[in-house]
Amino acid sequence: MVRDFTADHAALALNTATLGHNLDGAGAGWPVERVIDACAARGIGHIVFWRREIGARAVQIGNRARAAGVQVAGLCRTPYLVGRDAPLSDDDAQASVDMAAALGAAVLTIVTGGTDPGTKGLAESRRRLADRLARLAPYAADRGIKLALEPLNPMFGGNRTCLFTTADALAVCDAVAAPNLGIAVDVYHVWWDSTLAASLARARGRVFGHHLCDWLENTNDMLLDRGMMGDGVADLRGIRAAVEGAGYAGPCEVEVFSARNWWTRDPGDVLDVMVQRFRQVC
Amino acid sequence: MVRDFTADHAALALNTATLGHNLDGAGAGWPVERVIDACAARGIGHIVFWRREIGARAVQIGNRARAAGVQVAGLCRTPYLVGRDAPLSDDDAQASVDMAAALGAAVLTIVTGGTDPGTKGLAESRRRLADRLARLAPYAADRGIKLALEPLNPMFGGNRTCLFTTADALAVCDAVAAPNLGIAVDVYHVWWDSTLAASLARARGRVFGHHLCDWLENTNDMLLDRGMMGDGVADLRGIRAAVEGAGYAGPCEVEVFSARNWWTRDPGDVLDVMVQRFRQVC
Repeated sequence: MVRDFTADHAALALNTATLGHNLDGAGAGWPVERVIDACAARGIGHIVFWRREIGARAVQIGNRARAAGVQVAGLCRTPYLVGRDAPLSDDDAQASVDMAAALGAAVLTIVTGGTDPGTKGLAESRRRLADRLARLAPYAADRGIKLALEPLNPMFGGNRTCLFTTADALAVCDAVAAPNLGIAVDVYHVWWDSTLAASLARARGRVFGHHLCDWLENTNDMLLDRGMMGDGVADLRGIRAAVEGAGYAGPCEVEVFSARNWWTRDPGDVLDVMVQRFRQVC
Repeated sequence: MVRDFTADHAALALNTATLGHNLDGAGAGWPVERVIDACAARGIGHIVFWRREIGARAVQIGNRARAAGVQVAGLCRTPYLVGRDAPLSDDDAQASVDMAAALGAAVLTIVTGGTDPGTKGLAESRRRLADRLARLAPYAADRGIKLALEPLNPMFGGNRTCLFTTADALAVCDAVAAPNLGIAVDVYHVWWDSTLAASLARARGRVFGHHLCDWLENTNDMLLDRGMMGDGVADLRGIRAAVEGAGYAGPCEVEVFSARNWWTRDPGDVLDVMVQRFRQVC
């Protein structure tokens, strides 16, 4: 039985990237407090921040959100754990866990990073990823944080990810076998995958996040041209049915990177449309 | 036993897109005859053309290639068969078959086109694709032409393809069940797929093409930034082992779309590097 959101959007979460907050200089640049209040005013029950918004104010911002009636559902994200741009030290990954804990966020998202230099294919990078996660997961568990591995669309292979499907991410979860390591299922990255439902059927209890947006028929930019729900070709309800079939009953997080469209609009209008679309088409 | 190309590149095919011939105004613009002779001079045994190069000269160009000792391995490609840009009529698809036959090409490549307007997800588009292929395959069989369905990297969902993996393409082949309908396995599109070897293990006799290039660690453009073999992160030998494990013993076709790098170089130099890399790293 898939949840009915047509008259209730308490499960809706704003990922602040929908307002451009994942990138310096993008979006209208509303202060965190204004974003929190705008969510609260619309009955949006959850919010997901990016580290660059939080700085040293994690405890303060987390408390501010909850005082307004908004839960901090998650934090984006750890540094890369593999690939050329991954820090060798665990310090920054641990700092992201600490920030999530100070915020009172339930989940910390992981984008793995790309293929390790000097290797071909994915096997070696995935082994190294599992090694790093085996160290990071207990650190996070001690602080009450769940880690959500997010597979990315295969266009992000090379320099951003070594996990391309839900099955890829679950295989790493199997290898690490930490109870606080699971996956995030983002429409943008998985909408095309014929094996998604079959993969999720063996993911019970391991889905820690479900991200909403849409895949535009004519996607003009690899990174910054995501669609609002309903404007694209993804089967949003089919994907959510598979996600909830795996036992997921948490927030549905809208994350629309959109440099030329949604980020140019008034954030209040964006939130209004987001609520409306969530009720209508998700 | 994987074929050894270290001292023999007779199996090498040039896809003329490697010289920019898939796009108007790209590359050095060598005439077809000069490209044929440059392949012959280097012992490149096969060539694959694009329709825009051929025009009304299919018979002439096919004979010219064979007279120089170069086989016409294939033709790119049918029009889209589904999606917003697909012609409703079968005329142009049949014309592409006719051109392949007149060229003496063994294989006609199919890029399917994207998601049909008004649909969500892929199921309906794939049903319609199968319907069109069921009409096109006998037409092609009557003219001695094999049709190779090419799955594309999922970044091309929406407007270019509704098949993202070798398994997706094989499922359509199963549905159509025409003996001259198979698949093409292009490194650029499949390198990331953990299920590739398993999919190919059930594809015996149905692989009609193997396309070579490399996935650059930092891919800057969705379409026109492919790497030459050895310059990227794909496991070329592992992929070829899986392809040949499915019984493929045909040409290995180098297809490098590269607007800012290889297309700016002298075509003779590009062909020299192609031969060298084919022997060394493929």
